[in-house]
Amino acid sequence: MERFSFGSEVAFVPRGDLLDGVTVAPLTSPFEAGAPTQAAIFRFAPGGRIVRHPAGDLPQILAVLDGSGEVSGEAGVAAAITTGEAVYLRAGEEHEMTSRDGLTVLIMEGESLDRFRPSPADAP
Amino acid sequence: MERFSFGSEVAFVPRGDLLDGVTVAPLTSPFEAGAPTQAAIFRFAPGGRIVRHPAGDLPQILAVLDGSGEVSGEAGVAAAITTGEAVYLRAGEEHEMTSRDGLTVLIMEGESLDRFRPSPADAP
Repeated sequence: MERFSFGSEVAFVPRGDLLDGVTVAPLTSPFEAGAPTQAAIFRFAPGGRIVRHPAGDLPQILAVLDGSGEVSGEAGVAAAITTGEAVYLRAGEEHEMTSRDGLTVLIMEGESLDRFRPSPADAP
Repeated sequence: MERFSFGSEVAFVPRGDLLDGVTVAPLTSPFEAGAPTQAAIFRFAPGGRIVRHPAGDLPQILAVLDGSGEVSGEAGVAAAITTGEAVYLRAGEEHEMTSRDGLTVLIMEGESLDRFRPSPADAP
């Protein structure tokens, strides 16, 4: 068992202009190290945003862990999103995420990544 | 873009006796559906625990998103763990997680999964 931190104190601001007022704390090793799936915690300060851009070559899940904001996909229609809600983006799908009050979101991307889909048998 | 929920209201109690006072809300499709990596949110009620057992055939990351508790690996020595802290477990490694006051933990497992390891160049 190895311990490590993904707290605010180890988060950093990646190079590039896709993030504005957002820090990143990775959980997993990156694709460049051969990882099939990459996951990191993104923390939005109030007013922070992921600027509109296409997802990479792989599908993504954005799961809001805390706070609230707005998210849009290919259609460009911003919808409110809050703690406990997630979106699944196709590979290459244009998207944007913003937060007036700040939020924390887990972003996973990877080969064959798909969102959980409850089976009819699971219905209450 | 597809929206979905991983909130408490969609969480369930899996069959089996590995969890006690813990619900699961999956984020990704499961291994059985061909996913290379599986991720879910585990919510511990006060006194909840993942009973001591070996990890599966793949390495795992347990990342505490909220709350606090204790975790032990192969050595069996329980160590306090809190929000923003994570552990990386080798495939098959014995482990246990408990929480007196309740906690929320993201558990990921997958082929070639490794924890993030900051490079010396990233040091402040």
